Amino acid sequence: MIAISYSSSANLGPGYDILSMGHDAFYDEVEVLEDHSNGIRISGDGIPLDYKKNTAGLSASMILNDYGIKTGIKINIKKGIPAGLGLGSSGASAAAAVRAINKLFNLGMSHDEMVHYSMHGEIAACGSAHPDNVSSGIYGGITLVQSKNPVKIKKLKINLNFSILLVIPELFMENKTMYARSLVPSKITMDEHIESTQRLSSLISGLITGDRDLVSYGMNDNIVERARIKMFPYYYDLKRRVIENNAISACISGAGPTVLILYDDKSDYNGILRSVDDVMRSYNIKYILKKSRIMEAYND
Amino acid sequence: MIAISYSSSANLGPGYDILSMGHDAFYDEVEVLEDHSNGIRISGDGIPLDYKKNTAGLSASMILNDYGIKTGIKINIKKGIPAGLGLGSSGASAAAAVRAINKLFNLGMSHDEMVHYSMHGEIAACGSAHPDNVSSGIYGGITLVQSKNPVKIKKLKINLNFSILLVIPELFMENKTMYARSLVPSKITMDEHIESTQRLSSLISGLITGDRDLVSYGMNDNIVERARIKMFPYYYDLKRRVIENNAISACISGAGPTVLILYDDKSDYNGILRSVDDVMRSYNIKYILKKSRIMEAYND
Repeated sequence: MIAISYSSSANLGPGYDILSMGHDAFYDEVEVLEDHSNGIRISGDGIPLDYKKNTAGLSASMILNDYGIKTGIKINIKKGIPAGLGLGSSGASAAAAVRAINKLFNLGMSHDEMVHYSMHGEIAACGSAHPDNVSSGIYGGITLVQSKNPVKIKKLKINLNFSILLVIPELFMENKTMYARSLVPSKITMDEHIESTQRLSSLISGLITGDRDLVSYGMNDNIVERARIKMFPYYYDLKRRVIENNAISACISGAGPTVLILYDDKSDYNGILRSVDDVMRSYNIKYILKKSRIMEAYND
Repeated sequence: MIAISYSSSANLGPGYDILSMGHDAFYDEVEVLEDHSNGIRISGDGIPLDYKKNTAGLSASMILNDYGIKTGIKINIKKGIPAGLGLGSSGASAAAAVRAINKLFNLGMSHDEMVHYSMHGEIAACGSAHPDNVSSGIYGGITLVQSKNPVKIKKLKINLNFSILLVIPELFMENKTMYARSLVPSKITMDEHIESTQRLSSLISGLITGDRDLVSYGMNDNIVERARIKMFPYYYDLKRRVIENNAISACISGAGPTVLILYDDKSDYNGILRSVDDVMRSYNIKYILKKSRIMEAYND
């Protein structure tokens, strides 16, 4: 049984740990086969082959255990999503594996149950079970994590037309997500909280009602992006410049270093490209660009 | 020139200092007349007559000053909204006065400018300029404060059908709003912040898309209502009981003690009434009930 899962961008500015958007920039393909030897065997290039250190393997082992499935499985992973760049790579492998296993064994899982198992796979990648990327990896579109325990996800109805440009810097860091999470403050002031809720409410209502100005206003984060700014020093310059070229907005994709730019037909796309190049050159950082669209839904 | 402004409920659960809903339960009527003596004279029953201590007077004085209006004015206030109960009484007088002055002198203010002046009137009542109640007092409907300085308000497009029941306890406290604000923690944990954003995002998207379950889930607050619970010990019991009778949800109206109950035709209205009576009797607190509807818009 083969399933795929696409890249995604968590947070979207003020939605730390709750918002994520799937996009068709990259995808992982995961094949799961019954294997009448015991255990979970993993194959694939450039990934951990110990199932406990592999997000797909860890998710799979939890499902086999919870459902009392005695047979072994073989998981073959074709990574299409580059890892360590804030594109939801680890979560996508887990989500694709969970979807494939659900179909292979006819488990009839709900979407939230699939998110639950996919999320636990994330422990293999970054030490914590966070549901944001895997939510869009299971539901598609833009998802809101209503609750993590128990998992309760809501897919938002989006009425804004936009395209996506991903600026993917060639910056790799060991244990990046773990480090990025360690920079998030454990406490914030009430004023910071209120500012964040103003932005988040604007973003959500703008996305749902198709109000471009509300999304522009809302996609700004004064807590997590600010705390992590040393990880991506080019970000504020890049954001300012693409907005001068009438991009809708920009944000850090997940834990970075990728920047997600939203634009539409009111934007000066060539101006955006020039700005990105100017800024990234000025920081002497190589990057690739990837045009993309929101990944609306999976067929299962 | 006469203008009215209706009662309102700020916060709506997780939207502390950013959300407010106008309702037609009560209204203040404010008449403003030019007066060729100097200064601001205030008349009305049971209100401060010193204009600096009166929300309408303070707002008026700022406007006269900023617009260089040299004539004096007379402000006559008919209070319809009971004060000190979390119903936006102080803000409504200010908002009505601002609207009347805007028309009287043909000032052509934007809605946000009117919110700005109304908000500063609130200093007379509670020592701080907060824009939530006055936003719905100027815009009507459910308003989102995007920014306080400069004032930037967004009126949300609501697609949920509901009715309102206000449970108004006969509990009066000197300087209640100031006290209530002092109970709000100055810092919160990141986990509290995330839980709050989950609720708030659910509430906003539920109101806009007409998703009753999302509103039920979203209208819960783990920060401000929790910190103030000793001010309204009946609240959690009341909320639990009305939800058992299939109310959509309930929250503290502004700084309390009034409880705002949202219900619809799926709710057991008589069951809600019985529950309210049971709970309030068990706490030995007298109360009045007021059925109401959302106050959609003003005609100016």
